[in-house]
Amino acid sequence: MGMNNNRVEHFDCHDQQQFQTIIKIQQQQQQLDIAMEIHKVELPPQRTTLHKLQQRLSEIFFPDDPFYRFKNQSCFMKFILGLQYLFPIFQWGPQYNFHLLRSDAISGLTIASLAIPQGISYAKLANLPPIVGLYSSFVPPLIYSLLGSSKHLGVGPVSIASLVMGSMLSETVSFTQEPILYLKLAFTATFFAGVFQASLGLLRLGFVIDFLSKATLVGFMAGAAVIVSLQQLKGLLGIVHFTTKMQIVPVLISVFKQRDESLKKPKLFWVSAAAPLTSVIVSTILVFLLRNKTHKIAIIGNLPKGLNPPSSNMLYFNGPFLALAIKTGLVTGILSLTEGIAVGRTFAALKNYQVDGNKEMMAIGLMNIAGSCSSCYVTTGSFSRSAVNYNAGAQTTVSNIIMAAAVLVTLLFLMPLFHYTPNVVLAAIIITAVIGLIDYQAAFKLLKVDKLDFLACLCSFFGVLFISVPVGLGIAVAISVFKILLHVTRPNILVLGNIPGTQIFHNVNQYKEASRVPSFLILGVESPIYFANSTYLQERILRWVREEEERVKANNGSSLKCIILDMTAVTAIDTSGLDTLCELRKMLEKKLLKLVLANPVGNVIEKLHQSKNLDELGLKGIYLTVGEAVADISSSWKAQP
Amino acid sequence: MGMNNNRVEHFDCHDQQQFQTIIKIQQQQQQLDIAMEIHKVELPPQRTTLHKLQQRLSEIFFPDDPFYRFKNQSCFMKFILGLQYLFPIFQWGPQYNFHLLRSDAISGLTIASLAIPQGISYAKLANLPPIVGLYSSFVPPLIYSLLGSSKHLGVGPVSIASLVMGSMLSETVSFTQEPILYLKLAFTATFFAGVFQASLGLLRLGFVIDFLSKATLVGFMAGAAVIVSLQQLKGLLGIVHFTTKMQIVPVLISVFKQRDESLKKPKLFWVSAAAPLTSVIVSTILVFLLRNKTHKIAIIGNLPKGLNPPSSNMLYFNGPFLALAIKTGLVTGILSLTEGIAVGRTFAALKNYQVDGNKEMMAIGLMNIAGSCSSCYVTTGSFSRSAVNYNAGAQTTVSNIIMAAAVLVTLLFLMPLFHYTPNVVLAAIIITAVIGLIDYQAAFKLLKVDKLDFLACLCSFFGVLFISVPVGLGIAVAISVFKILLHVTRPNILVLGNIPGTQIFHNVNQYKEASRVPSFLILGVESPIYFANSTYLQERILRWVREEEERVKANNGSSLKCIILDMTAVTAIDTSGLDTLCELRKMLEKKLLKLVLANPVGNVIEKLHQSKNLDELGLKGIYLTVGEAVADISSSWKAQP
Repeated sequence: MGMNNNRVEHFDCHDQQQFQTIIKIQQQQQQLDIAMEIHKVELPPQRTTLHKLQQRLSEIFFPDDPFYRFKNQSCFMKFILGLQYLFPIFQWGPQYNFHLLRSDAISGLTIASLAIPQGISYAKLANLPPIVGLYSSFVPPLIYSLLGSSKHLGVGPVSIASLVMGSMLSETVSFTQEPILYLKLAFTATFFAGVFQASLGLLRLGFVIDFLSKATLVGFMAGAAVIVSLQQLKGLLGIVHFTTKMQIVPVLISVFKQRDESLKKPKLFWVSAAAPLTSVIVSTILVFLLRNKTHKIAIIGNLPKGLNPPSSNMLYFNGPFLALAIKTGLVTGILSLTEGIAVGRTFAALKNYQVDGNKEMMAIGLMNIAGSCSSCYVTTGSFSRSAVNYNAGAQTTVSNIIMAAAVLVTLLFLMPLFHYTPNVVLAAIIITAVIGLIDYQAAFKLLKVDKLDFLACLCSFFGVLFISVPVGLGIAVAISVFKILLHVTRPNILVLGNIPGTQIFHNVNQYKEASRVPSFLILGVESPIYFANSTYLQERILRWVREEEERVKANNGSSLKCIILDMTAVTAIDTSGLDTLCELRKMLEKKLLKLVLANPVGNVIEKLHQSKNLDELGLKGIYLTVGEAVADISSSWKAQP
Repeated sequence: MGMNNNRVEHFDCHDQQQFQTIIKIQQQQQQLDIAMEIHKVELPPQRTTLHKLQQRLSEIFFPDDPFYRFKNQSCFMKFILGLQYLFPIFQWGPQYNFHLLRSDAISGLTIASLAIPQGISYAKLANLPPIVGLYSSFVPPLIYSLLGSSKHLGVGPVSIASLVMGSMLSETVSFTQEPILYLKLAFTATFFAGVFQASLGLLRLGFVIDFLSKATLVGFMAGAAVIVSLQQLKGLLGIVHFTTKMQIVPVLISVFKQRDESLKKPKLFWVSAAAPLTSVIVSTILVFLLRNKTHKIAIIGNLPKGLNPPSSNMLYFNGPFLALAIKTGLVTGILSLTEGIAVGRTFAALKNYQVDGNKEMMAIGLMNIAGSCSSCYVTTGSFSRSAVNYNAGAQTTVSNIIMAAAVLVTLLFLMPLFHYTPNVVLAAIIITAVIGLIDYQAAFKLLKVDKLDFLACLCSFFGVLFISVPVGLGIAVAISVFKILLHVTRPNILVLGNIPGTQIFHNVNQYKEASRVPSFLILGVESPIYFANSTYLQERILRWVREEEERVKANNGSSLKCIILDMTAVTAIDTSGLDTLCELRKMLEKKLLKLVLANPVGNVIEKLHQSKNLDELGLKGIYLTVGEAVADISSSWKAQP
């Protein structure tokens, strides 16, 4: 099998083992006439460029095949299905009944009790008047309930988007000095966030949010949480002489700590749901009763009664701060979208239904556009609200309508009650909310499983903490992208060996029983061959060849004659890659070494064919499997010794 | 085999075929007791984090293992080898002889005849005084001949870096109005280009130049060539009344056209090498003879005699234009580096020796730093010079020393001869040089082989043409990176089928004889599973399952029971990917479908193990090959019908 008998006698122990391996393969092949037959590597069926482009684009933009429901349907049904597609309420509306309503009413009221104090607090986090937080818990949930496809998403302002908006706008404009301009910018940013979100959905570019990996978000949110907590602590520490009230912080913390576990302990969910409202009520009553003795405590003060005033006249489309508004809109838009989609998917997975990412983006985008015209700021699906909603037994988005109704009642009649609510309790609510964003367990898991992911997490944490929110976010995305590029730029190359008694070839490092086949060097390239790695691969493969030659020499083994590249994991190749293969073949030929390819996938063999590289390699140079390559080449050596 | 006998009778034709396939596999497995044995999937050997990090870093920064020569050597030999490593001249110096010198002298004088007119022209292209071009052909080649590892690289100013420097600096500073500032900025940009190049080499970050793919460079250079030609045409058209001289343009073009073919026709190389000098001499003599009648023709004018004056005092390290100088330095630095390394590698491959990329970067960087202190602007290995050098028979970098000596003689004694050289001939030399950069054949090949590469090429062409040089370059790199990301974000998923009579499973689209195995859906994922594609993969796999169920239903086939993911091409996985696999398994379990993995590679199985996903899947859920998975699961169904 490619070596003379008289040479076999000189083999040392190591090589005899290898020789036995090859004999075994040979015997097995003789037993198995079927497997010995060499299979031709086929080109995939010819497709036109247009067809290929169409297929590629549909894979990029319509991977979920959103129109499959419309196939083979009558015109009327298509209309109905289209209506249901645009407004999911028509899908579940007809089956809606009293039983569902009861569940939704309970959960709706429950999330309202969370939404009201959260709305007020988060608006403060964004440096906005507290009432804007309540407005934002009224219009957007109504719009979402018409358009959204998630059944459990609780819609409203969220901490992360609020704090990002607050910190980005406050860098340039001070709310205390220019409240009207600040408000205008906030609504304008919300408008652009909505436009950005809706157009991502409309253009089916939803995958851009996938680039905010979980690892970077963990770091980002923890960093943001630390910033906000420090900001709010100032407010808390400003009232140290009011000792009794300080107790509420550890109490709240201990209550809220259970929030994260609420998914697992549904019985306790009402604690986390009711705690903010309870503390607001208790503290408001306390301050009201002691109002003569506690005039040093900052309170919310007068809140205007009444519904959301229109704010479309406050949108700001030209002027020196337009760029700031757009930038803030983009950053808060993408962050809130990421949270909304992730939360929607989480609860959909729990109940085993699917959420259409692109449609959700449109729903969230439209609700923000509508919100920006009705005095609301950026809203999305909130994790805390959705968890409470889910645990309170929500069945459809009607729970959002119920919540909006409860907020409506509050706006119309109950606003004076919040006059004496102390700011400190809002600070406490904010701190407990954002401290929940610090997911050290996730960070620990990252450290254990994937060091590079942990590095991305750390970098985004410190980037947000020490530089700024958009820069931190930018760093986080850059690291994630860099990680992908690094994998492509420096791909693994494995040395494959035969697992005795089989036709299976595997990494000799991973499988100790896998043994190298004498005279062959079988390399598995674990990446597409691109411009970004073609030079590296060429030099690295030549280094493998050099090292193998040295190893063989040191062991007095049979000299290297053939290099087999296992192309199974080479999922794509570009023009630089094709040139590299050509170059490599020529360089190896000068060393009297043969280069063959095993198992190129469809589009790689297509490109090899188009670029005429195939002609140079010859059809003989490409095999279906490594096993067939070894068998065929060994037997050809035997035939011509 | 997973289906009851009484059901077999109801199979239609299509399914009987499939059934026969499975029977065949079964028979074959029975024949082959060896192959039937199920192999355990093994974890790669345990390594510490430090060891893994070390290995990873050495793969990133030292893929060429530059220290392998030093292994097992005495201290003295290590010193000698180190000296040879730093100054390759010590490597070939001792063997240098008269025979080599003769070859080098001939080729050195030949490239000098090209270098002198090129130097003058390219300096004009960078809006610099012509004499700077000659200075740049003197010091840098001397430095390179000490440090460089390529034997054939002809060093000097190149068109692409010259025109980029000219266009970037001229946007802000005009040479005619502020010649001293312009000169200062040019030297400073050269200094930063050198620092950037040398540090890329020193930090072993050479791979960043790989991100300028050939496709984008083809487009970039063509765009740049068009810009320069249009600029220079102004100069040419300004002298239309001087008709006799115009003839030189088509002549030069026709002469230069052969330049690209010079590699293939060594006999003709002297035409291209001598043409520029000849035209300069002829035109200079003509203008000199007709000097009284042709005072309207712009001529070079007085050039100072003498060697490079020191220019380290002209480096500009603070002031309003520092950022411009740094930016220009980075862009010209990376462009000239790309050209230099690519040219070095091309000729090394022709003569079958290796060029060390990182060391070349240091050599080119140091020669530019030295150049910036001796009145030179950015230089690198030039394609035209190197081709002429190679064809003229250069053996070592001594040819660069000979060229520098010839330039030295020119600088010291011959400068007055260039007084009457008309600018128009320099414009013609520039145009012919840059027109050679338009490689329409390469663009056509891109169009044929890889549409996305062609798009990148087009975009960089139009970006440079209509926006600006750095923006065009940025677009080009962004598209190349986007292409990689797109491949990762939307990876292929293949449906695999069995090739009858074998254990081989292949894409059913590519191999018509491959047939699906009833009750199984075998999917090959062709990409690492990352945050950027984990959502897509999850939804796409669920769509495949849905479509397979519909297909099976339409054909009355045996119902789907098991999904096998072939992980051969999944070369890496991150924490998001691990979560996705878990999620997917749970979702499929709710549909009573089994999910197993086949052939996970080393680091994937390691991560599965670390994240405890492996425990959930169970060792039973992972197989070494698809064939073993099918065989084992089918027989388990048979055992428990």
